Amino acid sequence: MPLVYVTRKEQFNAAHKLYNPNWSDEKNEHIFGPCANKNWHGHNYDLWVTVKGEPNPETGFVVDLKDLSQLIRSTVIEKLDHKNLNLDVPFMFGLLSSTENLAIQVWIQLEQPIANLGCRLHSVRIAETERNSVEYFGS
Amino acid sequence: MPLVYVTRKEQFNAAHKLYNPNWSDEKNEHIFGPCANKNWHGHNYDLWVTVKGEPNPETGFVVDLKDLSQLIRSTVIEKLDHKNLNLDVPFMFGLLSSTENLAIQVWIQLEQPIANLGCRLHSVRIAETERNSVEYFGS
Amino acid sequence: MPLVYVTRKEQFNAAHKLYNPNWSDEKNEHIFGPCANKNWHGHNYDLWVTVKGEPNPETGFVVDLKDLSQLIRSTVIEKLDHKNLNLDVPFMFGLLSSTENLAIQVWIQLEQPIANLGCRLHSVRIAETERNSVEYFGS
Amino acid sequence: MPLVYVTRKEQFNAAHKLYNPNWSDEKNEHIFGPCANKNWHGHNYDLWVTVKGEPNPETGFVVDLKDLSQLIRSTVIEKLDHKNLNLDVPFMFGLLSSTENLAIQVWIQLEQPIANLGCRLHSVRIAETERNSVEYFGS
Amino acid sequence: MPLVYVTRKEQFNAAHKLYNPNWSDEKNEHIFGPCANKNWHGHNYDLWVTVKGEPNPETGFVVDLKDLSQLIRSTVIEKLDHKNLNLDVPFMFGLLSSTENLAIQVWIQLEQPIANLGCRLHSVRIAETERNSVEYFGS
Amino acid sequence: MPLVYVTRKEQFNAAHKLYNPNWSDEKNEHIFGPCANKNWHGHNYDLWVTVKGEPNPETGFVVDLKDLSQLIRSTVIEKLDHKNLNLDVPFMFGLLSSTENLAIQVWIQLEQPIANLGCRLHSVRIAETERNSVEYFGS
Repeated sequence: MPLVYVTRKEQFNAAHKLYNPNWSDEKNEHIFGPCANKNWHGHNYDLWVTVKGEPNPETGFVVDLKDLSQLIRSTVIEKLDHKNLNLDVPFMFGLLSSTENLAIQVWIQLEQPIANLGCRLHSVRIAETERNSVEYFGS
Repeated sequence: MPLVYVTRKEQFNAAHKLYNPNWSDEKNEHIFGPCANKNWHGHNYDLWVTVKGEPNPETGFVVDLKDLSQLIRSTVIEKLDHKNLNLDVPFMFGLLSSTENLAIQVWIQLEQPIANLGCRLHSVRIAETERNSVEYFGS
Repeated sequence: MPLVYVTRKEQFNAAHKLYNPNWSDEKNEHIFGPCANKNWHGHNYDLWVTVKGEPNPETGFVVDLKDLSQLIRSTVIEKLDHKNLNLDVPFMFGLLSSTENLAIQVWIQLEQPIANLGCRLHSVRIAETERNSVEYFGS
Repeated sequence: MPLVYVTRKEQFNAAHKLYNPNWSDEKNEHIFGPCANKNWHGHNYDLWVTVKGEPNPETGFVVDLKDLSQLIRSTVIEKLDHKNLNLDVPFMFGLLSSTENLAIQVWIQLEQPIANLGCRLHSVRIAETERNSVEYFGS
Repeated sequence: MPLVYVTRKEQFNAAHKLYNPNWSDEKNEHIFGPCANKNWHGHNYDLWVTVKGEPNPETGFVVDLKDLSQLIRSTVIEKLDHKNLNLDVPFMFGLLSSTENLAIQVWIQLEQPIANLGCRLHSVRIAETERNSVEYFGS
Repeated sequence: MPLVYVTRKEQFNAAHKLYNPNWSDEKNEHIFGPCANKNWHGHNYDLWVTVKGEPNPETGFVVDLKDLSQLIRSTVIEKLDHKNLNLDVPFMFGLLSSTENLAIQVWIQLEQPIANLGCRLHSVRIAETERNSVEYFGS
C-alpha cells in the first residue's frame, strides 16, 4: 500500500532568551552571546509538521489538511504565538528555549493527537531564522 | 561508491476540484468545503523530482539535468500544465485529484523513464500551496 | 507630517481561462495559447495591497493590520478564493480575466472601504506566478 | 546623468510589545490583541535600505555595498538585533514600537550618514512578517 | 484610462569580476576586495522588467507576457546567460561590470524593442544576490 | 535519547565551467552545452550542512550554531566564495566542477572537523540554482 508523507507549515512569532539559571550572568553571556540579552529578543518561527499514512480511497487524503492545521494550531501554535517561550509556555517550563528543545516538545505535544487523526507523526521541523533550523523524528 | 541525490524542480498551473462522485453534492461540500466548488479552483503546483545514483566520472553527473528536465516535462508537465486535473489528465481519470494521488501517479509515470536515464527515482514531492505539500517515495 | 506606506499580503487560489467570446475558439487558442484551455487552469494568486497615511500617535499605526486584512478578506478574497474568475466573481463578469483586469477591479472594490478605515489606497499588486505580476495605482 | 537606485537588505531579530502607557491594560489588550502580551513576543525583521545616485565612473558603483552594509549595521542593526525594541533601543524610547515608527526612526538615523557616503537615502522598508511591511520615503 | 504596470522576471547565470584597467592590481584588490579575484566569480542574477500601458480591451493585456518574455530573452538573456560579463557581452565592453552599469545597459537594449510591442519600459531591476539589487528607471 | 538534526545554511558566489580535458572542445560543447562556455559562467550557490546529535542539557544545543557556521566558513566557504571552482579551489583540482562532485568534496572537508565539534555530519546539500540541487549523505 502506498505510504505518503504530508507536510503542513504553520508559523508563530515569539520572544525568548537563552539562559541557564545554574550559570552566572557572565557565563550565560559568554556562552550564548547576544541570545542571552536579559530583555529578550524574538523570532518569526516556521514550523513544518510531516505526517505519514495511506490515502483514504474516499477522499484521496492521508489526512484532511484543515483538520491537521486546526490540530496544530490548537495544540501548539496557540500556546507559542505572540508568547514568551521562557515565561508563557507550560510545555517549555524548566527547559532551555533552544530550537532543539522546542522541536522535541512540539513532537511530544503532537504525537498522540495526530495518531488520533488516523495517521502517524513523521517529523517536526522548526526554522528560527532563514539560516538555522532543526528537525526531530522522535526517539 | 558515492550515492548522490539530485533534485529538479518543475512547475505547473492547473485547475481541479475535490469531488467524490459516489457522494451527494452536500456531502462533497461538507467534506471538501470550498475545494469542492463546482466551477473549479486552481493552483500553481511545484514539483520536485529527486533521483539517486553515482556520478559518472566523465561528466561528474548522476544525470544530465537538461535530460531529466526534458523527461519530466514531456512525461508529466505537458499533461498537467494549463490543464484541468479532473477532466484533462489521462493518468488521473477515476481518481480524486488530491495532491497525494497526484504524487503517486506522477511517480508511476516517471519511475521507468528515469531508470532508462541510468539512475533511480527516489521521491516525488508536490506543493499545492506554500503551506501544503506531499512526498512519495514509492511503495 | 510623515507619510508611511503599509502593505498587507493576502492570497487566493482560483481557476480561470483567457477567452474572448467575440472570437472563434481557433482565434482564442491562437492568441491565448494554453491559457485558453476550455476546461480551465488555475493559479495561487498573491495579492499585495498598499495603503498610505500618517501613523496615529496613540497606536503607532497608519491602519490596524488586523482591520485591513479583515477588510481585504471580506471585500475581495472571499469572492475570489476557491472560485472560478470567469464564472463565480460578480465584479469580473463581462471582463477578460487577465491579471491586469483583476488588479483594476480589486482596486475599485477596495478604494472606498479603505478610505473608510482612515487611510488611502496606494496600489494593488497581483502576482499570477512567480514570474508574472501586475500593479495598479488607480487612474 | 543616470540616476540608479541601490538596495541593501539586512536583518535583525528583536522582541517587542505594543503598549500605550496612557491606557489601561484592558484597553491595550483590546486594541493591540496578542501584540500586547505583557511578556513580549518577537520577530525576524527584514530591512531594505534604498539609496539613489549616479554611478561613479571609476568603480561603476553608486555606493560600495560593503560600505553601505557596514554603515547600516553600525548605525541601526547593532542597536536593534537581539534587543527589546521597547527597552533597549535609545532611538525608540517613548515611542510605540510599531513597524511604522520603527521605519521612521531608522530613516532619521540613516539619512545623514548615507549622505556622507555620497548618495541619498530614498526609502526604508521593514517587514515584520512575510505578510506585513511598511515603507517610508522621508517627509 | 487605466495605466497598469506589468513585471516579468527572468534569470541568468554569469561570471564577472570588478576590475578597473586604469588601476594597478593592488588598487583593484584594495577597492573591490574579493570581487576583483582575477580568475572571476559569478552569480545567479534575477532580472525584473516592468512595462506600463493600458490594457487592450480585446485581450485584457498591457502586453502579451509570452511576447515580453521572448523579447527579453532574445534581446538580453541570450547575451548574458552562461557568459562572462567582462569578456562575452558586447553591450558591456569597456564598462565596469557593476550591477548599476548592467541595469543601465539592459535598459538601453530593451527600451526601443519594448516600445515596438506597444507599451513603455518603466524600470529594470537586477538582483546580484538576495541582499544586493539595483533599479533603473531611465534618464 | 533524542537525536536531533540541525541545519545551517551558508552561501557562496563562484565561477566555473563544465569541461572534461580528455575531450575535444566540440565534445565538451556537445555534452555540456552553454555550461562549457570557455570564458566561464557562475552561480550564487546555497549550501545546507545538516548535523545530528543529542542536545547538551546545559545549553539545549546539539551544536552551537555560531561554532558550526564559523567552522563551515573557515573550512569551505573561504575557499569557494568569490573563487573559480576549476582554478582556485585545491580540493576540486582534477575534478569536474559539477554540483555532485562539489557536494562530495565539501562532505570530505567537513566530516572530521564536525566530529571534533561533538556531533556527526548527516548531509551536505548544494543548490546551484533555484531548480537544481544535490544532496550527499556520505558513503
